[in-house]
Amino acid sequence: MSNRLVIGTKRYSSWSLRGWLAVRLAGLDVAEEVVRLAGGGQTTALRAISPNGLVPYLEHDGARVWESLAICDYCAEIAPGLWPEDRIARAMARSVAAQMHAGFAALRRALPMNEGRIGRARATPLDDAAVSDIAAVVALWDDCLSRSSGPFLFGAQFTVPDIMFAPVVFRFRSYDVALSGKAAVYRDAVLAHPLMRQWHAEALAEPAEWHLEHYETLD
Amino acid sequence: MSNRLVIGTKRYSSWSLRGWLAVRLAGLDVAEEVVRLAGGGQTTALRAISPNGLVPYLEHDGARVWESLAICDYCAEIAPGLWPEDRIARAMARSVAAQMHAGFAALRRALPMNEGRIGRARATPLDDAAVSDIAAVVALWDDCLSRSSGPFLFGAQFTVPDIMFAPVVFRFRSYDVALSGKAAVYRDAVLAHPLMRQWHAEALAEPAEWHLEHYETLD
Repeated sequence: MSNRLVIGTKRYSSWSLRGWLAVRLAGLDVAEEVVRLAGGGQTTALRAISPNGLVPYLEHDGARVWESLAICDYCAEIAPGLWPEDRIARAMARSVAAQMHAGFAALRRALPMNEGRIGRARATPLDDAAVSDIAAVVALWDDCLSRSSGPFLFGAQFTVPDIMFAPVVFRFRSYDVALSGKAAVYRDAVLAHPLMRQWHAEALAEPAEWHLEHYETLD
Repeated sequence: MSNRLVIGTKRYSSWSLRGWLAVRLAGLDVAEEVVRLAGGGQTTALRAISPNGLVPYLEHDGARVWESLAICDYCAEIAPGLWPEDRIARAMARSVAAQMHAGFAALRRALPMNEGRIGRARATPLDDAAVSDIAAVVALWDDCLSRSSGPFLFGAQFTVPDIMFAPVVFRFRSYDVALSGKAAVYRDAVLAHPLMRQWHAEALAEPAEWHLEHYETLD
């Protein structure tokens, strides 16, 4: 088994971004394989690679890991700084990360990740569930940032909750979601992170024929 | 802050079962508070208690933990045997647990947990997505059990993946989902676990006025 991280089109694959950030932050020496996604639910090509038919998928030193949160935990065994050191903060960080892993479905549906789109709000008004999800995410961030004093959710280190929310930060920029106070400062700190800049640049460098009309024409 | 685990009606609350199993397996000394659920999406009464407005919710030695997978991880810091000791097995266990945490939505919709229902298949045929989810769960179990030799997914110990799938085992019994081979033996081993028997007995002892028509008349 080779050491590799399989991810999807960087322009769109929010889950891949999480696995990639974890692997890069932990400094794992893995080859990166980008699979062109045919759509949000595409799994056929990936079924032969990953047990859940989805990206991201990691093979490392004999271990096979899928699901972005599991990849984060795997990487945190190698780089323990990916979780907060304080046990009470760590308990909260695990809660927040798990909540993002399984939740905020309306936000994800309404604002799919598209790194080719910057600062253009949706013309169609967001439904109540999406508006409520956005408010809940901002409230969670505010709560974490009030306790940690930032710049990241749990302090100076970029930890697993920041990884889990990184695609949401990209979405908020793409669709020009208005933020203020601590949440706005946090968004800017995440966007300024070198790995976030690198992902964005690599997403823009992908061939135009990889673009999907469904995402590009969303309005 | 007191040491407490807040859970929902034991008859229906699949997520609560997970948090409760983790806390009991780790031997945490917490008071158990059962909140009567008004329905699957009910959050009003819980919003004042838990940051995500959902059960299970744990307070322990100054830490606040929500989301069942985060509670499992919190408990595993105290009782490390909740994750497999071998790092490659643990990587797979984390993947499987995270997959259950965020996935199999069609199965969960079609077969809601109801510990008052035993061995009665749904009269309405399951939709394709639910059938596919059931097959995927069984395939995952088979894969784990082939590697570990059972009786539990990762061997002799009841670990986090068993906790995460415990409500699915109950659902398979409730709705008489046909299993064979390793999966059937596994289901029976989980059902025979003393904590699963205890939960089931306590669910049946809940007052009849806590029953919800929506679940009781599902056919």
